[in-house]
Amino acid sequence: MSTPTAPPRGMRDLLPEEVRLRDRAAAVIQASYERFGFAHIETPALEHIGWLTSGEGGDNEKLIYKVLKRGAKLDLEAAGGEDDLVDFGLRYDLTVPLARFYAANQGQLPNPFKALQMGPVWRAERPQKGRYRQFTQCDIDVLGDATVFAEVELLAATTATLADLGLDDTVVRVNDRRLLTALVTGCGFPAERTGAVLISLDKLDKLGLDGVAEDLGKTGFEAAPIAAVTALLSEAGDDLEAFVARLPADDGVAEARQRLATLLSSLPSERKVVFDPTLVRGMGYYTGPIFEVVREGLGYSLAGGGRYDEMIGRMQGRPVPACGISIGFERVVLELQAQADAAGGPRRIALLHEADDPPAALLAWCDERRAAGEVATLYRRRKNAKAQLSELAAAGFDGYARFRTDGPVEVQDLRA
Amino acid sequence: MSTPTAPPRGMRDLLPEEVRLRDRAAAVIQASYERFGFAHIETPALEHIGWLTSGEGGDNEKLIYKVLKRGAKLDLEAAGGEDDLVDFGLRYDLTVPLARFYAANQGQLPNPFKALQMGPVWRAERPQKGRYRQFTQCDIDVLGDATVFAEVELLAATTATLADLGLDDTVVRVNDRRLLTALVTGCGFPAERTGAVLISLDKLDKLGLDGVAEDLGKTGFEAAPIAAVTALLSEAGDDLEAFVARLPADDGVAEARQRLATLLSSLPSERKVVFDPTLVRGMGYYTGPIFEVVREGLGYSLAGGGRYDEMIGRMQGRPVPACGISIGFERVVLELQAQADAAGGPRRIALLHEADDPPAALLAWCDERRAAGEVATLYRRRKNAKAQLSELAAAGFDGYARFRTDGPVEVQDLRA
Repeated sequence: MSTPTAPPRGMRDLLPEEVRLRDRAAAVIQASYERFGFAHIETPALEHIGWLTSGEGGDNEKLIYKVLKRGAKLDLEAAGGEDDLVDFGLRYDLTVPLARFYAANQGQLPNPFKALQMGPVWRAERPQKGRYRQFTQCDIDVLGDATVFAEVELLAATTATLADLGLDDTVVRVNDRRLLTALVTGCGFPAERTGAVLISLDKLDKLGLDGVAEDLGKTGFEAAPIAAVTALLSEAGDDLEAFVARLPADDGVAEARQRLATLLSSLPSERKVVFDPTLVRGMGYYTGPIFEVVREGLGYSLAGGGRYDEMIGRMQGRPVPACGISIGFERVVLELQAQADAAGGPRRIALLHEADDPPAALLAWCDERRAAGEVATLYRRRKNAKAQLSELAAAGFDGYARFRTDGPVEVQDLRA
Repeated sequence: MSTPTAPPRGMRDLLPEEVRLRDRAAAVIQASYERFGFAHIETPALEHIGWLTSGEGGDNEKLIYKVLKRGAKLDLEAAGGEDDLVDFGLRYDLTVPLARFYAANQGQLPNPFKALQMGPVWRAERPQKGRYRQFTQCDIDVLGDATVFAEVELLAATTATLADLGLDDTVVRVNDRRLLTALVTGCGFPAERTGAVLISLDKLDKLGLDGVAEDLGKTGFEAAPIAAVTALLSEAGDDLEAFVARLPADDGVAEARQRLATLLSSLPSERKVVFDPTLVRGMGYYTGPIFEVVREGLGYSLAGGGRYDEMIGRMQGRPVPACGISIGFERVVLELQAQADAAGGPRRIALLHEADDPPAALLAWCDERRAAGEVATLYRRRKNAKAQLSELAAAGFDGYARFRTDGPVEVQDLRA
């Protein structure tokens, strides 16, 4: 057969050792978020193509895996282009499906609704190290609550969840889209080009202030606002009050200031929350506070999100305040893999047997080990004992026993 | 927006109550199978279209959701037909992906390899009650073991798993493809039409013996073999030795007899295993023992599988013995829903608060409940207390408390 045995480009086969770690991480995340009252929901992998291409997905809409129509609906002759050939697409995030889910099922859900979603999403991105075309997202969202309690609960739940995973040295960086808007217009950029300015500011981590200034210049902005914004940001620390004092005063800024002050003071004392006036976050749909959870010395965030009060309503035709945060599941798994003692779990025993051993007796021996909380399973004994034992050790077994009917069956350590 | 808010036809939004039950079932199944040494693996949802249309999938190959090529690979002008437009498809089962996975990763896996897979599959079937176009499958397979120990472990693990789910009144029905072949040829049907005869016999449950005879007649078989097979089956009970005595003797029959005898006698005494000469199972790739797990009085099986020694090897170009069983996850969930006490889980508390309550104090109160193993979450108190409390009860909360700073916060029962 000429079809390659490798999975589709950019996608992965996950082997037992990696799946064990992923399953444990997913179970911890789910249990933690459920303790905070987030209700696990599921939507199909496929969505109507109209929802996926409504404009809410930004650049992700260019990366959709689209599904060919089937049966009589597919008319190749009459098709004028790609749009006539497809009816569904694989979801590229969990936010668009959540908006559709909420529109379809709101009558059966409490208000506010606190949702947990965990599942794969698909993006036909250029494959690169650590980026996959199918990957797991893990989102919590509060729909129908315009107050700061939504943000507080999202951040409390997410930092507690990361701590449950052993990642307790996290820092939450917070900012507000309304401060960014005031910053941009206050420095003299044209208000209608705020989005373009923010795209440049978002590169501060990579480019530094000089690089951002150069980038803004290339985009066609004038020297005066560029100088103003770099001056302001170079002097900005993490003092919220000092930063806000340098912005033009308006209702949005005042509301943002108050909300951020609450976020900075409301989490348990062991959580670190800091104001970061340079935090931008990519998605255009954010309307209020935005946040990222980072780990000291790590080049990327472990979680990120914000308030997006208009998107759900826009898709539904009536206003619905909304706020969400997404744990970067693949990144969290990388962090856990990097930790020394990522193994754990129950003791795993292989029972080696001969072809003519009685199956019932083998099963009974294994059942006793399982009742004691261990993993137990049968392997036919091979002649090359050394090769077999090292294969079992490589497969994650901790011990083995050779079955015998004329005496006790003793477990030998495979890790010795 | 004109796109409907319902999910794609035949697919489901899963609401919190249903997801709780599904999550609990999935966790029990996974924990049980892992105790038996089955290693959880994952493959992508998408497979190369060549693997999905290789002929191993039977009728399921007509039901594939196919994915449109992207970018420069998609040439609508030059496309002669559907095949030129697609490169991937959504998997319709977990067996074809397992075969590909094993071919790609065998060098890193123990031999035999005992795999657990749980995940969604997609089939564009005509939607009907209880049948969905995206549904969860749950398979265990033993690859590389030609001995009966593979079958014994599959059945022991699956019946134990169903018992862990509270379904401990199951019966395992076993048969062997080689007995069916001997039955068909022994009755005088042409050997090359065995498949067609088995398709009719597979309808025995629905049509009865007379109906099967009629069906065979319509298919064009002669009266004599039809009379022979109905006579033999009408007299067949669950006595393996008596049934085999009426079949033409050959090596396959002898081997099948011995293997089935072992299966009938090897499971723990609390498990019921019976020989059923009328059991056929649909898929054409089975080569040896086949089995189904049923529940008394239930119109469908909860699990089914068998030995398929040729398929994995055919896809890989070298022989690989293989044996698997699949739990019908959606059916198991239906069974659990039908059980009275399907609820369970930790106590769920809503803390009702005012807009000006201090978030840190609210969080601290909730954290104490969570530390005690309960679910705790914030809800802003609404004016219509009665409506809010019944909404919370409907959302699965067991209790609520009203926050106050001037005295103890007491939990009230919502289920009273």
